Amino acid sequence: MRTLVDLNADAGESFGRWQLGDDERLIPLVTSVNVACGWHAGDPATMRRSVQLAADGDTAVGAHPGFPDLAGFGRRALAMSPREAADACLYQFGALRAVADSLGVPVRHVKPHGALYGLTLRDPDAAEAVADAVQSADPEVRVVLLAGPTADRVAERGYRVVREAFADLDYDDNGHIIIEPNPQAKDPEVCADQVMSVLRGSVTSVNGTAVPVDADTICLHGDRPNAVEVAKAILDRFATEGVRRAPMVEVAGQRA
Amino acid sequence: MRTLVDLNADAGESFGRWQLGDDERLIPLVTSVNVACGWHAGDPATMRRSVQLAADGDTAVGAHPGFPDLAGFGRRALAMSPREAADACLYQFGALRAVADSLGVPVRHVKPHGALYGLTLRDPDAAEAVADAVQSADPEVRVVLLAGPTADRVAERGYRVVREAFADLDYDDNGHIIIEPNPQAKDPEVCADQVMSVLRGSVTSVNGTAVPVDADTICLHGDRPNAVEVAKAILDRFATEGVRRAPMVEVAGQRA
Amino acid sequence: MRTLVDLNADAGESFGRWQLGDDERLIPLVTSVNVACGWHAGDPATMRRSVQLAADGDTAVGAHPGFPDLAGFGRRALAMSPREAADACLYQFGALRAVADSLGVPVRHVKPHGALYGLTLRDPDAAEAVADAVQSADPEVRVVLLAGPTADRVAERGYRVVREAFADLDYDDNGHIIIEPNPQAKDPEVCADQVMSVLRGSVTSVNGTAVPVDADTICLHGDRPNAVEVAKAILDRFATEGVRRAPMVEVAGQRA
Amino acid sequence: MRTLVDLNADAGESFGRWQLGDDERLIPLVTSVNVACGWHAGDPATMRRSVQLAADGDTAVGAHPGFPDLAGFGRRALAMSPREAADACLYQFGALRAVADSLGVPVRHVKPHGALYGLTLRDPDAAEAVADAVQSADPEVRVVLLAGPTADRVAERGYRVVREAFADLDYDDNGHIIIEPNPQAKDPEVCADQVMSVLRGSVTSVNGTAVPVDADTICLHGDRPNAVEVAKAILDRFATEGVRRAPMVEVAGQRA
Repeated sequence: MRTLVDLNADAGESFGRWQLGDDERLIPLVTSVNVACGWHAGDPATMRRSVQLAADGDTAVGAHPGFPDLAGFGRRALAMSPREAADACLYQFGALRAVADSLGVPVRHVKPHGALYGLTLRDPDAAEAVADAVQSADPEVRVVLLAGPTADRVAERGYRVVREAFADLDYDDNGHIIIEPNPQAKDPEVCADQVMSVLRGSVTSVNGTAVPVDADTICLHGDRPNAVEVAKAILDRFATEGVRRAPMVEVAGQRA
Repeated sequence: MRTLVDLNADAGESFGRWQLGDDERLIPLVTSVNVACGWHAGDPATMRRSVQLAADGDTAVGAHPGFPDLAGFGRRALAMSPREAADACLYQFGALRAVADSLGVPVRHVKPHGALYGLTLRDPDAAEAVADAVQSADPEVRVVLLAGPTADRVAERGYRVVREAFADLDYDDNGHIIIEPNPQAKDPEVCADQVMSVLRGSVTSVNGTAVPVDADTICLHGDRPNAVEVAKAILDRFATEGVRRAPMVEVAGQRA
Repeated sequence: MRTLVDLNADAGESFGRWQLGDDERLIPLVTSVNVACGWHAGDPATMRRSVQLAADGDTAVGAHPGFPDLAGFGRRALAMSPREAADACLYQFGALRAVADSLGVPVRHVKPHGALYGLTLRDPDAAEAVADAVQSADPEVRVVLLAGPTADRVAERGYRVVREAFADLDYDDNGHIIIEPNPQAKDPEVCADQVMSVLRGSVTSVNGTAVPVDADTICLHGDRPNAVEVAKAILDRFATEGVRRAPMVEVAGQRA
Repeated sequence: MRTLVDLNADAGESFGRWQLGDDERLIPLVTSVNVACGWHAGDPATMRRSVQLAADGDTAVGAHPGFPDLAGFGRRALAMSPREAADACLYQFGALRAVADSLGVPVRHVKPHGALYGLTLRDPDAAEAVADAVQSADPEVRVVLLAGPTADRVAERGYRVVREAFADLDYDDNGHIIIEPNPQAKDPEVCADQVMSVLRGSVTSVNGTAVPVDADTICLHGDRPNAVEVAKAILDRFATEGVRRAPMVEVAGQRA
């Protein structure tokens, strides 16, 4: 069983007048946070607040770029070319990095959001284009991809990758996650069980198939109503089972 | 008479399907270029092309952040607080810097666009907030402000400023520029005359008043239909009058 | 004392993933509702839900067009010309009317939102252009303006106007409302007091000056956290004081 | 051979500062025009100008709703549900109808744009949802769909449909059009040939297969650089071959 892993959550998903998520409580509970960058959620002031909360909570900061679709919260597939997807990630990563720079906080990873993450799953060329663009802008930054064949391929090409699994999403038999447009509350213990299963090397699909998973980081969704409770259940389990945590870039860096 | 000055132009003002300006011809004629960053014009692919053209033409690159108003091209005043204006500049500067980083090109200045530039003129706190935010993200980058009392004040506070004058805009008696929503063709020789007047230390307002001006850089508008002809007329005049050119950050750096 | 008045509230202020306001509880408590139309808040699905809630609750429906500024919730002034303001209202009114038509519900008024409402206060030409545009598209629809000189002037020009006062906003000595970017909870009884004062013909400014007011409708803000409690306090007061309610277009139609 | 047909073009595809297409010359050459409604192109002022040009040129006006994707000009597929697609069309149709009402001009059809049109091709439920929504808002308005099985099915369900073919796009063997992101100039005579082939009942796919087509209207793209020349070549051919023209709603109304 893996005994070192990162726990990450999406944050900064408010937008202007609209609040979403409980960053104040959630960010200190995770070791890495993915901050929305304005295209599907987030605005500069929200980004600043989330980065500051992460710095205060000793949580590593990453960019969470999405499709330009505020109305759909970046969860509707948009037919972007690999080049367009890469440009979208580069732009949003840069925006967040400047905000973080002004606070003296480094941005350490880039994790595509929602349907853009789905695009990197379904289109390996898009995954590689994103990794290439981000790394050409900053060689130290890692791109987060779903643990599986695409992530392996991009890593083999020489790009710095973090492999991710999910605490709170269902998997299909191909090992792909099933995205929920509007996440509902979920049993925290069921999520903790799924996390421990991942650490043991596999996850059970909705059809009961065991899918092998080798992940550096575990995600939970900040806009799930009971996200804080889910995080706490996972942390309790980590304490019981002797699992240590570190930011995803450090966990991934210990491979190979 | 000043004999060293920068000539700058706005570029990258296309957006998706829509073309505007003649970057291919204009960028090589100027020593600094201000690249639109997606809020009032420009998209990531256009930004990349403009930065590459600048690198190819040995032209210094700056960010040209604007209000979030594509429909108004950033030329309608929006009541942003100084903090909001600073955040807007920081976000867009960062986005462009990441695109430029991926091409190995530095971003050397930040020049607010249109009505956001107007806000830095009318609201010295906004000017200072922008300078502070940009410099906190990158101490080497300079902020471009209209040559005049606000620019002087911000420079006295210790921020790195570039003072700007305009080749192709009218001035009022306060030394403020009069922004045109849709620039029309203008006599290139009249623009060249105004530039030489600036280099001699003053500009004549629409009412015939001489307004003192002390500028490091001269701007011409990339979306004026005959922008290329205006640039050429100015360059011819520089050749005749023995004026040398250098990127604005270098010209401004020689003050002090 | 006036004994017939409309009570109106803004609704439909959610956007995509983000919820705001409590339309289910608030809409049945008012006699007219102003539905956001997508530029500052609201999306087509939210608009449909709000119109249906109004139809179910026997509440009259109006359009609530705003500036194209989701990030600022339409509460930041944008320098639109009267023609631009009129076009903005026409577009958004039409969008809502089609949604309402598909449900068999009429749209009876148009009330500009936030800083666009502020523009109709400060710029009588904008107020008249909006009234003219809306009425040219549908002669039966009325435009809501702050009760005061501008509303009087537009009505004298022959446009169908509804005069409005506010239950939950402070007034300055000019009789102008002071807009809050992020409304906080307010004492419901204080709001009810202000409503009764309006029905008696005046409102007290923040400086203690009595400003005369002659209003057909009273607004309360749907995004104030205790909006439902404010509405209930006003309704209780109406019951005690014998004030009857009717949709604003009917109240205004009884003038003259 | 059909001897009565409509010729339609997209128009109003400028946006704010950016010009696209040559509405002044193109609109008078066609019998129906599809006006962009602000989500992928077009703004209220542009919509007003296009509607006025159509009224002046005795050209029938329709709405041309698209995906909310200005950066992609509505030509990138977005995974909307049928309900979302219907709402998008309803909203944009209504916006244009209000603008047209203010000018006393009726809106007679709704034609989805670009990738939203593609969605109605690939997803018959989306096609029907769009037809249902539009007709529930205005029973006289017709929805334009690509001539073929989906259009037939929606018509059989009782919705008012216009069947369309294309003068200037290639077809695949399934009779589906192949959308060009950035249309290039095309030989006007080749386009005229394709139109005459359509009137005789079939079109030849890129693989040389004859695909049967039964169309009430023929489209040409307003953003093709030589759109005006293409229109003129088609009109010349119509004159030679004795083909008469009428607005699409009238041509379609003569079926049955």
